[in-house]
This record gives sequence, C-alpha cells and structure tokens, in this order.
Amino acid sequence: MTAYDALMRFQRETEALSAVAERLAWDQETMMPRAAADQRGEESAAMEAVLHARRTDPRLAEWLEAIDDTALDATAQAQLRLIRRGFARASRVPADLVAALARQTSVAFGVWAQARAADDMAAFAPTLTDIVRLKREEGQALADGGDVYDALLDDYEPGASSAELSRMFDALRPPLVALRERVLDRPAPATLQGRFDAAAQLELSRGLAQAFGFDLDGGRIDMSVHPFSSGGGRDVRITTRTLPEDPFNCIYSTIHETGHGCYEQNIDAAYQLTPLGHGVSMGVHESQSRIYENQLGRSRAFTGWLFARARDTFGDIGVADETAFYAAANGVHRGYIRTEADEVQYNLHILLRFDLEQALIRDNLQVGDLEAAWNDRFAADFGYAVDKPSNGVLQDVHWAAGLFGYFPTYTLGNVYAGCLHAALRADLPDLDAQMAQGDLSAATGWLRDKVQRHGGLYSPRDLMTRACGTAPSEAPLLDYLESKYSALYGV
Amino acid sequence: MTAYDALMRFQRETEALSAVAERLAWDQETMMPRAAADQRGEESAAMEAVLHARRTDPRLAEWLEAIDDTALDATAQAQLRLIRRGFARASRVPADLVAALARQTSVAFGVWAQARAADDMAAFAPTLTDIVRLKREEGQALADGGDVYDALLDDYEPGASSAELSRMFDALRPPLVALRERVLDRPAPATLQGRFDAAAQLELSRGLAQAFGFDLDGGRIDMSVHPFSSGGGRDVRITTRTLPEDPFNCIYSTIHETGHGCYEQNIDAAYQLTPLGHGVSMGVHESQSRIYENQLGRSRAFTGWLFARARDTFGDIGVADETAFYAAANGVHRGYIRTEADEVQYNLHILLRFDLEQALIRDNLQVGDLEAAWNDRFAADFGYAVDKPSNGVLQDVHWAAGLFGYFPTYTLGNVYAGCLHAALRADLPDLDAQMAQGDLSAATGWLRDKVQRHGGLYSPRDLMTRACGTAPSEAPLLDYLESKYSALYGV
Repeated sequence: MTAYDALMRFQRETEALSAVAERLAWDQETMMPRAAADQRGEESAAMEAVLHARRTDPRLAEWLEAIDDTALDATAQAQLRLIRRGFARASRVPADLVAALARQTSVAFGVWAQARAADDMAAFAPTLTDIVRLKREEGQALADGGDVYDALLDDYEPGASSAELSRMFDALRPPLVALRERVLDRPAPATLQGRFDAAAQLELSRGLAQAFGFDLDGGRIDMSVHPFSSGGGRDVRITTRTLPEDPFNCIYSTIHETGHGCYEQNIDAAYQLTPLGHGVSMGVHESQSRIYENQLGRSRAFTGWLFARARDTFGDIGVADETAFYAAANGVHRGYIRTEADEVQYNLHILLRFDLEQALIRDNLQVGDLEAAWNDRFAADFGYAVDKPSNGVLQDVHWAAGLFGYFPTYTLGNVYAGCLHAALRADLPDLDAQMAQGDLSAATGWLRDKVQRHGGLYSPRDLMTRACGTAPSEAPLLDYLESKYSALYGV
Repeated sequence: MTAYDALMRFQRETEALSAVAERLAWDQETMMPRAAADQRGEESAAMEAVLHARRTDPRLAEWLEAIDDTALDATAQAQLRLIRRGFARASRVPADLVAALARQTSVAFGVWAQARAADDMAAFAPTLTDIVRLKREEGQALADGGDVYDALLDDYEPGASSAELSRMFDALRPPLVALRERVLDRPAPATLQGRFDAAAQLELSRGLAQAFGFDLDGGRIDMSVHPFSSGGGRDVRITTRTLPEDPFNCIYSTIHETGHGCYEQNIDAAYQLTPLGHGVSMGVHESQSRIYENQLGRSRAFTGWLFARARDTFGDIGVADETAFYAAANGVHRGYIRTEADEVQYNLHILLRFDLEQALIRDNLQVGDLEAAWNDRFAADFGYAVDKPSNGVLQDVHWAAGLFGYFPTYTLGNVYAGCLHAALRADLPDLDAQMAQGDLSAATGWLRDKVQRHGGLYSPRDLMTRACGTAPSEAPLLDYLESKYSALYGV
C-alpha cells in the first residue's frame, strides 16, 4: 500500500467515526430521553477522545511526509490539502487546552441558559471571560504569529480574513441601516391569521423539502427545539419545528435546512467519507440554505404557488391573495432576536456580533463592558433599545459554546447567496415561470451543478468565482434587497 | 492511580463507546434512511474496529496481570471476572474477522429483507453461506479446541453448554408436541374482531409499559419491523409494532420488550457504564421479558383487568367477557411465525432452530439444504407444512445478523421464567388480586429485587438459584403450561 492509500484508509475510518459522533449529537437533540444527559455526556466525551487521538495520530505526520503531492491528480491533491490543514491545526493546540475548552464550554452551556432565563448578564460574565481567554489562547496557538481572530475564523471559513470581511460588511451596513429605516417607517403588512395544525404544517413542509430536492430515501426530517441539519452522503437529517400561530416558521425553517441538507446530499458520491465529502465552509453552506429559503422560497413567483398550497392545507389563512401572502412572507417587523429576523435586519444582527467578538478576542473589549457595547450598537443600527439581556447579549448560544468566528459566516453566506442568485437568474430566464408552478428543479439543479457537487474540491472563494463568473461581492445582495423591499414597501 | 482504577477508567470509556455502537444499531432499525445502508456499514465497522482495539488493548493484559483479585471486594472481583473473560474472548478473534463480520452482517440485513419479501431463499443463500463461514471461523478462534458452537453460545449465555441445553430441550420436546396435538384437536377460541386504530394501540401499550414499570424519562418506545430492546441505564429504548386486525400483537410485544427494558433500567445505578451494568445473559434477559409477557401479562387475573382497558380503548372488540378475552389472549392456533407463536408452540420453534444452527456451524448441514431441513422438521413437530420461505426459513433476522447461539436462550429464558414464576407465586399469595386491579408493582418489585438489580454480579445459574431457591429445571415451565392449557382447552 502506498503512503497515500494508507493515509486515505485511515482518514476514511476517521470520517466514519466522525459521522457516528455527529449522529449522536442529532440523537441528543431529537430522540434522547431527558434523564440520559449525564450518561450521554460520557458517551460524547469518549467519542471526542477517540477522534482527537486519530486527528493527532503520529502516523499522519509520517504518511504526509512520505507523500509527493505533485505526483498526484488534482482530486488527490485537494484531499491532501484538507488533511494537511486539519493535521496542522489539530497539532498546534495543546491537549490540555483542548480539554480545558471542552470542560469549560460544557459547563458554560448550563450557566448561559440559567443567566438567559434570569436576564442576568453578570451571572454569565465570569464564565464567558474564561471562555474568551481560552479561545484567545487557542487562536494564538493556531495563528502562529498571525491574527488571533483570523486563526479562529479559519475554522469555519478557510482562507477568509477579518480584513476582507470587514471591508464587505462595512459596505453593507450603511445601506442596510438606511433600508431598515425606510421600511420600518411604513405600515407593516398583514400577518397570517388562524390556528395551524402541527401535523398539517409538517406534512406541507415535508412536501416543500421534496420540492426543493431533499431526498427522503437518503434523509429524514424530525422535530427539534432549534432546527438544524446533520450528516452527509446518503444519511442527511434535518429538523424543523412548528408554532401554532405561525406556519411560516415551520415552512421556512424547513426550506432553510433543506438547503443545507441538499448540499450534503448532492456532493459527488465519490467523495463520500473523505475530506472532500463535506460542504467546503460554513459560509458556502449558509449560501445554500439562504438562497433556498429567501431568494427562491420567499420570491413572488414561488410564494404565489405556495399560497394555493397553504390554502389547500389550512383553509382560510387570513390573507386574501397571492400579493398579500407574499407581503406576509416578507414582513419586516421590529424585533430583538437574530433567528427571527427578516432579510433586511438579519445581517445587522451579524455585523454587530462580528465587531464585538473581534474586540473580545483581540482584548479590545472586556466582558464586563460587553452588554453596554451591545446595547449601544443595537440602538444605533436598529433604532430602538434592547429591553432585556435575553433579547440582547444573552440571546445566542454561540459564545457559550466557544464558537468565535462562526457568526460572520452567516452574513458571508447571504453575500454568496446574492452572487449566486444574480448568476442563476442570468442563466435561467424562465425561473419565475417555473417557480410559479412550484417547479424548483432548474434552480436547484443549477446550484447542484455549480456549487454542491464539488464538496471541498475548491476553496470557498474559488468555488464562488467559478460558479458566478466573478469574485464574491456584497453588491448583488444589496441590489436584491433594495429592489425587493423598495417595491414591497413602496419606499 | 492503582492498576484497578486505571483499568476501570479505561473500561468505563469502552462501555461508553459500546453504548454509542448499540445506539447506532437502534438507529439502523428505527430511524436510518433506507439508502444509508452501505454508509452505515462503514460506520458500524469503524466503531467495531475501535471497540475491538480497546477490548484487545495490551494495557488490559498489564493491568490484569498487576491486580491481585483476592485483595478486592466481591463487587470488584465480579467486575474483574467479566473483564478477564471479555479480554480472553476478544483477544482470540482476529481484527480482520471482526471487521468482515460487521461489514457482512450490515449488508446482509438488506439482502435478507429483500429475499424475505420475494420469498426467495436462493437470493439469501450466498450471503448466509458467507456469514456461516465467518461465524464458524469466529467460533473456532474462540473455542480454542473446544466445541465451535458452544464457543458462540457462550457469548449469549456464559457458562452454558449445548449438551446441557440439549438435555433440557430434549425433555421439553415430547410433552410440548403432545400438548400441542391435544390442544389443536380442540376447537380454537374466538379471536378479537374489529379494526384497531394504530395510534390507539400504541397509546394503550404505552400505558401498559408504564404499568409494568418502564420509566419513560429514561427510555423511549418506537416502531420497528421486529420489536427489540436496546441500551441501558438511563437510556433504554424498546420498540413495538401494530397490526390493524390484532391488538394483542402490539400489546404483548410491548410488554415483552418492557421486561427487557425494565431489567436494564433497574440494574443498580452504581454499576452503570461498568461490566456489571448489563443483564447477565440473554437467557436471564428473556426470562424477564417472558414472565412479564406470559406468566403475568397473559394470566387470567391480569387479562381480566386488561379486558376493561381494551373495551375502553376500542369499544366492542368481538368477545363478550373476561373469560373469552383470556381465551383469546392465550389462543393456540396453527401458524408459522415464531414471534407470533403461543406459549405452547413457541419453544418448538426454538428447538428446531437450535438443532439446525448447530448443524450449520458444525458443518453438518449446508445452507443449500437448510430450507428442506427446516420444512421437514417443522412438519414433524408442528403437524403441518410450511407454505413459503417467509413463513419458514426466512422469517427471522438472527442468522442474517450473525446471531448463532442466540436462539436457545429464548427457550432457556422460558425455563428460567417458569422457575421464577413458581418462586414468585410462593412469595406473593395476593398476586392474582393485585393483577386483577392492574397492579403489577409487587410482582415487578420482586423481580427487580431478586434478579434485575444485580446486573452481572452473579453467574446466570447462581442468580437463578439464589432467586428461586433451587437450581434451574424445565419442570416448573412444563407444569405451568400443562396446568394452564389443559384447563383452558379442557384436555
């Protein structure tokens, strides 16, 4: 066996074990009996220990040393690029720091949840201070002299830099703030009215997932408190939730997770259980979920078709026609919570978090000053004041989980979705006519071909440039939002 | 850290990983998307490789060498007895063979299911031939010169031998065949009539599981083609199924699996994630499921209470009174399927499989001749002919799953249940009055105290002897069946 073959065999087994660990996490959110939490903690920790040992196995260094990348084809070179990168990152972080982070974030979840329930940032501050310090140490170990935040960001968006993201995000912020002000000055559109049977919501959403291309032979849809997607290849699992008064929550959560799920299902089968067999970055992943959910799912053409389905399913839903339904599906309302935000305000939530978490990690902002900084920035960008910490600085689990560098990939995903949507519209002149019939196959086929099937073969930036014909830019997203919401709100 | 502490820490992590592997198997039967089978095969194989490496880790030999068992308390000695036994067995089977079996049995499940659906034994024969060969190799590696079948049997019933079981089973067979003939000569009792809503069946059965002591905070009930139980401690999962025309199937499948599940839930919490924290053998496990299902669940007293519940749930069920309901719940009918068999015929199904699988493993019977051998033996013991393979040789998943040596533990479990029932009746003179009120707490409490809480502390034979006051024998089971069915059928 060559060193490459030996490495890939080892790697394949690691990928399989990693898939098991991911399914265990899925089970925890969807199926696990409530009394099993302690037992599950030991099971997850044991799996993580196995995976960490494999990711830092000394044989990896020997195999990587023995392989001449230039003698291999482009696919094998791409596999090696990802393996070398993962091994270098795993090897740089000392085992005791990994253990300290695992311990601290595991404790932090409960502390955060209690602090949020009590609306008491001071109760969470000491724990968050420890996590920021540990993540800074991790970033320093990974950065190898470079920027500490960029080193963390690289975990979620390989090759991205905070400088490049800041330039993009700084160009987004003023026009988004202005658009928000214009839109919120206008009367809000009517919302749906009624009680919407949970089973009927799920049945409708299941059909929508299939219409967007989700393959239920190689996937599942279940319920969870927070919708998520999980798994890869022929075993991709998404979740959704239902609210009795708002079927849009279930519908668009499902379509969003379908975007993530289809990305994983549509990766070239030859890459399955290899480093190339995953979505290439969080930003590109989010571009798929967001274009499915927003540019396609909330379009005038598709909501026209969906209106009829919703009436078939629920009877009278309190809005009279397609136009009112489209407006309801795209309503912009004052609100504090990121996960409930509309397309106009969502990115303002992210820009706020991006700037604050950079300042925390670079030691330019202390945790003791975080709540005030959050509230000031929120008032400036949203035009109204945060009323309580659970609607502000305590609303997201990410920092408690140690996920610094994750937030910006949400907006990067929206930027990518804007670019892809412009390119897709240029290639598919009949798209609106198709979507008005509920036919998404051309659009999702385009995304499968241009983006999804490639898995990790290209860097995120290269992948987007190949798909769109130009380098990623915030301009198409801004054009799309300006055009859509100025028409919808007459501003 | 002492060698004992180091060993137990390592063992605890192994137990946690083993629980993950077991949950993966549960997922495969209940949740896995159908197209995921190949991918799952690799995942299961990777988990098995990790577990095999831990079970044969050279450090185990060093720790076991360094420990003086006689200096430890009885519980620690029992832990070590199980660890030493497991290490000796695991060290004998080559890692390649373990991986090949995991891969082969994972694929075989789909092949078997398709062959059964198509009633085509020839479609399954090549796969089964491979499995028999691999299991024979495994048995030879384990037997170390001893009997190859006994070596496999020992995995399910430590300390049992095929010679001892054959003696017991040979004593059962003639009186069971004779009882079957007498009973089937009589008119069959009325069966329930109606269509029984699946959701209502599940709701009733869920309540029965709780009445028998199943804790839904530390467990789940799901649907699967073949009901089973899985997991331990605070995460025990049982499954059931519904037939529209026969609520007894769901009711008694659920009560049966509840017996297995309660055994695992009721093991001393101090043993959780240790070798003592599991049911001690498949035979003892089956004794709990069968005594819950039959001696308790199908008793005249309990069916009297259940009759009212069934009428509350389904309305008119086609039988007029408790007596007719009791007769229907204990009806003996011609039939082909083991899992649907009544108490009289069930063990004849097992005796058939026990003899055939011994012959397969010992190479005295070829897979190509298996269907004919099955059909001949069936006609001899049951008095009628198998009509199609799905009612005969293809009905059970066990051989496809590589479970050779498992079948006899079903009848051993019935024998144990007979012994336990005789002892329990002697200790609980008010049992019938309690069960007539739907109160099973004294009976299940007796079983928890005498059997379940001990986990793996005693050998199966010792455990039964302590619980019953005498060594296990087939006589109480025969007495129980003779007395119950001669009264029911007037024979």
